[in-house]
Amino acid sequence: MAAAPAATTLTEKHRPVLDQALETIRTRAYWSPHPEHPKAYGENGSLSPAEGKAAFDALLGTRIDLDQPGTDGWVEGERSPYGLDLGVSYPHADPDVLLPAMRAGMADWRRAGAEVRAAVCLEILARISARTQEFAHTVMHTSGQAFMMAFQAGGPHAQDRGLEAVAYAYAEQTRTPLTAEWTKPQGRRDPLELRKEFTPVPRGVSLLIGCNTFPTWNGYPGLFASLATGNPVLVKPHPRAVLPLALTVQVAREVLGEAGFDANLVALAAEHPGEGIAKQLAVRPEIRIVDYTGSTAFGDWLETHARQAQVYTEKAGVNTVLIDSTDDYRGMLANLAFSLSLYSGQMCTTPQNLLIPRDGITTDAGPKSYDEVVSDLAAAVDSLLGDDAKAGALLGALVNDDVKARLEAAAELGEVALASREISNEEFPAAVVRSPLIVKLDAAKPEAEAALLHECFGPVSFAVAVDSSAAAVELLRRTVREQGAMTVGAYTTSPEVSEQIEEACLEECAQLSLNLTGGVYVNQTAAFSDFHGSGGNPAANAALCDGAFVANRFRVVEIRREP
Amino acid sequence: MAAAPAATTLTEKHRPVLDQALETIRTRAYWSPHPEHPKAYGENGSLSPAEGKAAFDALLGTRIDLDQPGTDGWVEGERSPYGLDLGVSYPHADPDVLLPAMRAGMADWRRAGAEVRAAVCLEILARISARTQEFAHTVMHTSGQAFMMAFQAGGPHAQDRGLEAVAYAYAEQTRTPLTAEWTKPQGRRDPLELRKEFTPVPRGVSLLIGCNTFPTWNGYPGLFASLATGNPVLVKPHPRAVLPLALTVQVAREVLGEAGFDANLVALAAEHPGEGIAKQLAVRPEIRIVDYTGSTAFGDWLETHARQAQVYTEKAGVNTVLIDSTDDYRGMLANLAFSLSLYSGQMCTTPQNLLIPRDGITTDAGPKSYDEVVSDLAAAVDSLLGDDAKAGALLGALVNDDVKARLEAAAELGEVALASREISNEEFPAAVVRSPLIVKLDAAKPEAEAALLHECFGPVSFAVAVDSSAAAVELLRRTVREQGAMTVGAYTTSPEVSEQIEEACLEECAQLSLNLTGGVYVNQTAAFSDFHGSGGNPAANAALCDGAFVANRFRVVEIRREP
Repeated sequence: MAAAPAATTLTEKHRPVLDQALETIRTRAYWSPHPEHPKAYGENGSLSPAEGKAAFDALLGTRIDLDQPGTDGWVEGERSPYGLDLGVSYPHADPDVLLPAMRAGMADWRRAGAEVRAAVCLEILARISARTQEFAHTVMHTSGQAFMMAFQAGGPHAQDRGLEAVAYAYAEQTRTPLTAEWTKPQGRRDPLELRKEFTPVPRGVSLLIGCNTFPTWNGYPGLFASLATGNPVLVKPHPRAVLPLALTVQVAREVLGEAGFDANLVALAAEHPGEGIAKQLAVRPEIRIVDYTGSTAFGDWLETHARQAQVYTEKAGVNTVLIDSTDDYRGMLANLAFSLSLYSGQMCTTPQNLLIPRDGITTDAGPKSYDEVVSDLAAAVDSLLGDDAKAGALLGALVNDDVKARLEAAAELGEVALASREISNEEFPAAVVRSPLIVKLDAAKPEAEAALLHECFGPVSFAVAVDSSAAAVELLRRTVREQGAMTVGAYTTSPEVSEQIEEACLEECAQLSLNLTGGVYVNQTAAFSDFHGSGGNPAANAALCDGAFVANRFRVVEIRREP
Repeated sequence: MAAAPAATTLTEKHRPVLDQALETIRTRAYWSPHPEHPKAYGENGSLSPAEGKAAFDALLGTRIDLDQPGTDGWVEGERSPYGLDLGVSYPHADPDVLLPAMRAGMADWRRAGAEVRAAVCLEILARISARTQEFAHTVMHTSGQAFMMAFQAGGPHAQDRGLEAVAYAYAEQTRTPLTAEWTKPQGRRDPLELRKEFTPVPRGVSLLIGCNTFPTWNGYPGLFASLATGNPVLVKPHPRAVLPLALTVQVAREVLGEAGFDANLVALAAEHPGEGIAKQLAVRPEIRIVDYTGSTAFGDWLETHARQAQVYTEKAGVNTVLIDSTDDYRGMLANLAFSLSLYSGQMCTTPQNLLIPRDGITTDAGPKSYDEVVSDLAAAVDSLLGDDAKAGALLGALVNDDVKARLEAAAELGEVALASREISNEEFPAAVVRSPLIVKLDAAKPEAEAALLHECFGPVSFAVAVDSSAAAVELLRRTVREQGAMTVGAYTTSPEVSEQIEEACLEECAQLSLNLTGGVYVNQTAAFSDFHGSGGNPAANAALCDGAFVANRFRVVEIRREP
């Protein structure tokens, strides 16, 4: 099939952005085509802040009819962590009808080729980008993120990660040429000659299992990696975070249809409460790829049972920060205080265990005892969150009652160095807003081990007294090996300690941030430059985004003949 | 660690070959640095044919002491399919001692970096290449291949596949730069700046489980892909094909040691008869990668149980050739006759099911009935193998008694169109040499199905009467989907039929050779250009060689800090 005119136009339109993305994943310098300041929106067809809010308000209480085959009912029930019922209803699908329908457009999508597929993906992202102000509210009111974070992480940063996946997918598919002439000399006889064609072919339907806290940021890499490599994508959102992904599916279907492809290449699988369709869908023979972000238990279940599929999981981990010494004590405390507070610690990248030598540390402000470091950190958090309005804009709301229960239980685990504080939200009084809890633990006490070596998802950190920095490195190794880690942070002025920590991270395969004291935080990664997770420890079997994340989503079929 | 002087020298020596390999995997044109004519050897330090034979003879009855840690005994027992007892003994390893010892050199090997690792791998291959004449005899007397095939497939072609894997591994590891400076503008404030380091890190010990028929050809891709990406490699040869891989391990240990690395990065795990150590080793926590070629049953077992590892398998498949029409009837028959005969059909790529319309086909020699096609093919095989000496040089010997038993049983499955003939080998009277058997089956008869949809490994093909070419395409689809296929061949002059076959192969993910009538055969693939297997049907979960084959053998650890 020749590309439809609409597809050709898209290729011309998006080629420069694709080329820049391809260049940036090679240099890993800073770049993003998606502005992260709200004021940048409202021109060139993008929604302004007011328009975005109005568009979100207009969605409330409506039915999002995606015109999908096999729709056998309607699903609703999202309640914002800020208190409002969204009242949006979504199609419920009969997979026996929907899955075959999703396969119907595969051949045309395969024939379109890698470049057209990339251009269509970039058009989807461009239209989502234009509605960033609207998406921000959908992410805020499903994840509980504060508005600015929902705007940035759920908007431009998520779009960046989607674009990054498209770039990797394109690069991977075009490593092999479409055709080759092969001529093998045979001495005095005629050479052997073959004409070869190489076609990237999809694996089959790809299932995206979304998460509650970062529906777009964690969802877009898998979605776009699979779509760009020719696979239809079935999006199964978290039941409490349907709206951002339902809109994403709606935009994707619109763009696919306009470009001359089957809209059913992307579809939504919303579910009734307690239906558990992820488990049913994940093992169906049509599903050949699964992307998942969520609990270790279900991630392990998927890896064990969805054997017919390539399974990419991001599960739980225990993130560590080693505090050995610093030449910027205030900067360190401020940086850590922010990391612990951002989105109430409800990030897979938030530090949990802060390892501090029991004999104290050296700093530019003189030696500090273990107790001083802990109380100074507590004070830094207090100071950061002193004003309720500002605190709310950083903390957001607790995403669900489980986090609240875990937070309350954690206060019983040891001496509380910083109590979690209830913070009121004037605009949304129903929001449950809590500041971080810091609990003191002693690594030498056996009872501490259960707490240390277990993810306590939410605004909970442990200030862990360790015998020495060397002991801290050993505990770090054990933690990463047994529990996995999405991030490791460390503060040290000692080249020897730094080398020990770096070596531990290289050997245990964990991403390390060293001596961050400014405006970059251990829990944030930037697309095109930072890898999110390593794919080499138990926290995740894949990294966002690298060659391995895309290379097995398609295969190359060769057809060879004599010329 | 700075690279040792020896390693730097190797980098300079091998960089041109690496660059050419990198270029060729992009263009997929013909290229090989390893001559495939025996006469090309004997100069520039390589063994001449006579020297190679003498070196092989000198190995017989000796002990190959690799000086491995944990050697707790000696293993022997290889008997050549040509009748001689090799009498070579190999170290038996205690994995509790050997595996930790193999990990000891990992950090230095990681620090060497991708280029030095590639150069060391290329030096290993170069030394093996210089001993190609010797390796040829080891492959012949373990696999039963005839000498010329053992020479070419076991020598230059295997070395090509190893080099190809090294090139992919190098390309993959260098997609991310070693360092990056990241500067993010912050409006009027100072930009955020980070200095980032990216290090490819190995997964852990890689286990190569070798096969009987192509110990080097099927073994080198995984061995070199893992070693080049920083992983130690434990080589577990098939008990009847130890010698070629033991010599490979010996060379690798020699080169690693000379280059300043730990020789234990490559080690041998030979086993006592019936010990079944592959099953024990594959699930050990130290083993993080498994490469396997062999039966579907054990391949499936590995995929199910070796969950702590990345598992790459090449298993059984059922290869089909569709015969719809041809404009070179004689060429087609000759080409097929050769494909069926080569190494007595003991290749994972040999055609098994020849689908022929029951109403016959059109050819440049006039219309041919089903019976005529089958008898003309039988005659072509007879003519190719008329002379016993020439036949033996093509057929080699049956690799084991199972093949012979299967061949004998297959003659009962239907009408025999071409009986398998016993052929005597003057030089090796004990060799069991058999010409191909062709049995007629009717796809319309239910009892044919069990035979058709099951791999019958060895010199057995089925001439299958089908209702039409369209029915043949449907049977092809079903065969690939249910049984997998390493290769598909087809003969047709009809653009419509060709398109149907191509579409079937693209959708079912099988590699297709169209209208081969000359000196290229469906069962042969060339490194740097052809993919061996697709990795997308049940015959194999990986292709040799592509990005996916190497991308997940290592991970990238990022260390970032403020500048």
